[in-house]
Amino acid sequence: MNKDQYSVDLNCDMGESFGNYQIGNDEAIFPYITSANIACGFHAGDAAVMKKTVKLALKYNVEIGAHPGLPDLQGFGRREMAISTEEAYDLVIYQIGALMGFVKSEGGVLHHVKPHGALYNMAAVNAGIAEAVAEAVYKIDPTLVLYGLSGTELIKAGSKIGLRVANEVFADRTYQDDGNLTSRKLHNALICDVGQAVAQSLRMVRKGLVTSVNGLDIAIKADTICLHGDTEHAATFAAKIHTAFKEKNIGLQAP
Amino acid sequence: MNKDQYSVDLNCDMGESFGNYQIGNDEAIFPYITSANIACGFHAGDAAVMKKTVKLALKYNVEIGAHPGLPDLQGFGRREMAISTEEAYDLVIYQIGALMGFVKSEGGVLHHVKPHGALYNMAAVNAGIAEAVAEAVYKIDPTLVLYGLSGTELIKAGSKIGLRVANEVFADRTYQDDGNLTSRKLHNALICDVGQAVAQSLRMVRKGLVTSVNGLDIAIKADTICLHGDTEHAATFAAKIHTAFKEKNIGLQAP
Amino acid sequence: MNKDQYSVDLNCDMGESFGNYQIGNDEAIFPYITSANIACGFHAGDAAVMKKTVKLALKYNVEIGAHPGLPDLQGFGRREMAISTEEAYDLVIYQIGALMGFVKSEGGVLHHVKPHGALYNMAAVNAGIAEAVAEAVYKIDPTLVLYGLSGTELIKAGSKIGLRVANEVFADRTYQDDGNLTSRKLHNALICDVGQAVAQSLRMVRKGLVTSVNGLDIAIKADTICLHGDTEHAATFAAKIHTAFKEKNIGLQAP
Amino acid sequence: MNKDQYSVDLNCDMGESFGNYQIGNDEAIFPYITSANIACGFHAGDAAVMKKTVKLALKYNVEIGAHPGLPDLQGFGRREMAISTEEAYDLVIYQIGALMGFVKSEGGVLHHVKPHGALYNMAAVNAGIAEAVAEAVYKIDPTLVLYGLSGTELIKAGSKIGLRVANEVFADRTYQDDGNLTSRKLHNALICDVGQAVAQSLRMVRKGLVTSVNGLDIAIKADTICLHGDTEHAATFAAKIHTAFKEKNIGLQAP
Repeated sequence: MNKDQYSVDLNCDMGESFGNYQIGNDEAIFPYITSANIACGFHAGDAAVMKKTVKLALKYNVEIGAHPGLPDLQGFGRREMAISTEEAYDLVIYQIGALMGFVKSEGGVLHHVKPHGALYNMAAVNAGIAEAVAEAVYKIDPTLVLYGLSGTELIKAGSKIGLRVANEVFADRTYQDDGNLTSRKLHNALICDVGQAVAQSLRMVRKGLVTSVNGLDIAIKADTICLHGDTEHAATFAAKIHTAFKEKNIGLQAP
Repeated sequence: MNKDQYSVDLNCDMGESFGNYQIGNDEAIFPYITSANIACGFHAGDAAVMKKTVKLALKYNVEIGAHPGLPDLQGFGRREMAISTEEAYDLVIYQIGALMGFVKSEGGVLHHVKPHGALYNMAAVNAGIAEAVAEAVYKIDPTLVLYGLSGTELIKAGSKIGLRVANEVFADRTYQDDGNLTSRKLHNALICDVGQAVAQSLRMVRKGLVTSVNGLDIAIKADTICLHGDTEHAATFAAKIHTAFKEKNIGLQAP
Repeated sequence: MNKDQYSVDLNCDMGESFGNYQIGNDEAIFPYITSANIACGFHAGDAAVMKKTVKLALKYNVEIGAHPGLPDLQGFGRREMAISTEEAYDLVIYQIGALMGFVKSEGGVLHHVKPHGALYNMAAVNAGIAEAVAEAVYKIDPTLVLYGLSGTELIKAGSKIGLRVANEVFADRTYQDDGNLTSRKLHNALICDVGQAVAQSLRMVRKGLVTSVNGLDIAIKADTICLHGDTEHAATFAAKIHTAFKEKNIGLQAP
Repeated sequence: MNKDQYSVDLNCDMGESFGNYQIGNDEAIFPYITSANIACGFHAGDAAVMKKTVKLALKYNVEIGAHPGLPDLQGFGRREMAISTEEAYDLVIYQIGALMGFVKSEGGVLHHVKPHGALYNMAAVNAGIAEAVAEAVYKIDPTLVLYGLSGTELIKAGSKIGLRVANEVFADRTYQDDGNLTSRKLHNALICDVGQAVAQSLRMVRKGLVTSVNGLDIAIKADTICLHGDTEHAATFAAKIHTAFKEKNIGLQAP
């Protein structure tokens, strides 16, 4: 078995600070990931934070993605808004462009786009929003990779328009029988044990399977695993996942 | 005398509407100008307006420029803010990038950058801000043209870093003996007579001279003439300037 | 029949300009209305506009209401957002307070509160949001009148908590058989003929009835009639409604 | 010597979190202060944070003040803006009103107003801005206390219009020969030793004197001492100041 037989991307949301406000410990996590989703100023991040985060990504040789969100800083982009598909298209173009500005001026190349929060959730289930997001990404640069929740409308829309897509799974979230994530409102939504998170991740990558909360085996495609950067133990968790994958000869690289 | 002996650019600030709020009559002015400075969402404009304005510019074959401003929608970017040079750099990159997103996705090419309002004024007199703006433009794309008030710090900073620059003059504003614009707070700041505005413009382009309010002849470089788009008679004024220049065999083209 | 037998309030949304952006012709409409709903800076309006509009209302002896909306200037507060009931409560308190600042400093007294746009619509059908809005109004000042769409959850929530309420109807909108407004997406949503609008208004006030688009007579309570201020003929329409009511001896006064 | 012979207020800036972003450890500091300046949503704070902070102040029996700032969340209200005196008036009214909304709805009474950051600095030296701020406070409620940097234009403007004023001094900042604070850009701006800070504070309160960085004795009026809430050791520092004053029989109470 060679190293490349199984391979996966480890991504993390980055650059979520704003002005005087600090969130996350980005530099501690960069060594363990292969791609970073950088907030673009609508739900989090500002121009200074974006520049700094792009520089960190280049320093750690991590692929850079735009992480566009709804225009709702107070709600951190987590409150759904009844935007039209055209509004979705427009705000995705704007935010990708803004991040591209920093990537270009720092000598890097933008690699992917992953919608944030409520926009991510809306694009997972609403075909119109999914198509608008995919079209925005395609029209700004058809070589970008589109990250979306594994198997959802966003992945379908990306594939349909001709983008490379990355099915995203979660190491530390539990799954329902239908392949959806367990709602965070439920007590069993999160996997707190690192060993269990690693085991779930390995199985998703190697076997394309995840065990649902009801014990069923669910088929799932795992191109990229999302790590969380804003919790207390985020860096420790990232390091452990990274180490476990290395030990199991799983290749770590962005799609 | 051939058409190319004298040539000048006619530019106008465009895309200053925001959401439900309309300003200007952009489509009526586009036929008469050769370059458009499009607001980027900080002092005016939003993603939808930016897309629409980029499309109009492409339709009328007008060169597209980014028009970055201070983050002050309520003040329309006209209130100076004590930003650092690094903050100036960051907000210029962000806004150029955002507009580039729409230009790229619509199949166009960004042509120039002209700072707006208070940022324009600050960059005219503050060498540090001027250098930060010029560096931002250069690093994002060294082929962009930098527009600035004729003969000011911004023009110097642009030339120094290696950018092509465009010295901007005003058809409908009067000049002081030192070459500065008469403050809008003074009663004689504006030239309301179109014939006089045309005459002043022609003389600046052909002779490199303008008559100050005190009757002195002042040397001035006129690469581009700024037309105003937000007044009642903006389109009429633009049409008359355009016609007068055509009749005098002045070439009209972006730098 | 004396003048007081029938009486109704004519209200209009006011103060929707923002910074450099003008909407509406407020001063032309003030002479014809009895209460004004003033935007509070979230979906429209800013501090300068609020002060100016409060002064106009006092000058024309028109009752002043707060018109709180969702935090969405670009969408003019018309895009629903998935806010919690607590967030609804908080943003209503904030905005009423801000307007109270101007009313108090100008020597006036705040009279009522009417939610704007998407918040108005959400409070009409969502009992939780309705109760949060009503509680906010009650806790900041229990003598305020709560305006809401006639017969909806917001009216119920206001009555339940002990507020005076005003059932709002529309002169220039058509109604469905169930008493709801015809969606603006349908061609027959608006009544463009002033005579018809006056006739519908008079019947709602005198008889408590409105004819639906299908010809049914629907019971409707009409405490206050909403006039629109942002259309071209808004002032003319307001004047005609005002005159027609005066001629028919309908009292015009705020609740 | 009785407890009331010397008395001073200990104030602290509070409620500076925003949405998902946390700053400060407000609840740890409330037990040691006598008045709180609560951010009003322009430079920091949002409606949810304001409500929570007002409740904490009432719980700890601490007087509540509005802490209005410039409309610059990204810059935390620390970047001077060229606002007009009328704009200063308007934004102070708006923010005091918004906070009053929460104070009123929670059954409290607003006690004072202290401008924040750049607005505080501008009001200290610019008589026009100082008078606009003082007029706003006076017109919204003439019983409010106006806090300003000891001996500055803001204090003069407040006294002139008929407000009670509170001269503010700093426990942990050094002073120049002219009574101004040493710029934070200089290495000796801050007093890091708690004992020294306590000693400076006691002397200002008891003797009305402070030793400048050059060793001169400067007359200074100390009605209220500002504690900082956003540093790591803020609560420890507040507790030590509080204890030291209690031991020296200095009365602690808001003006």
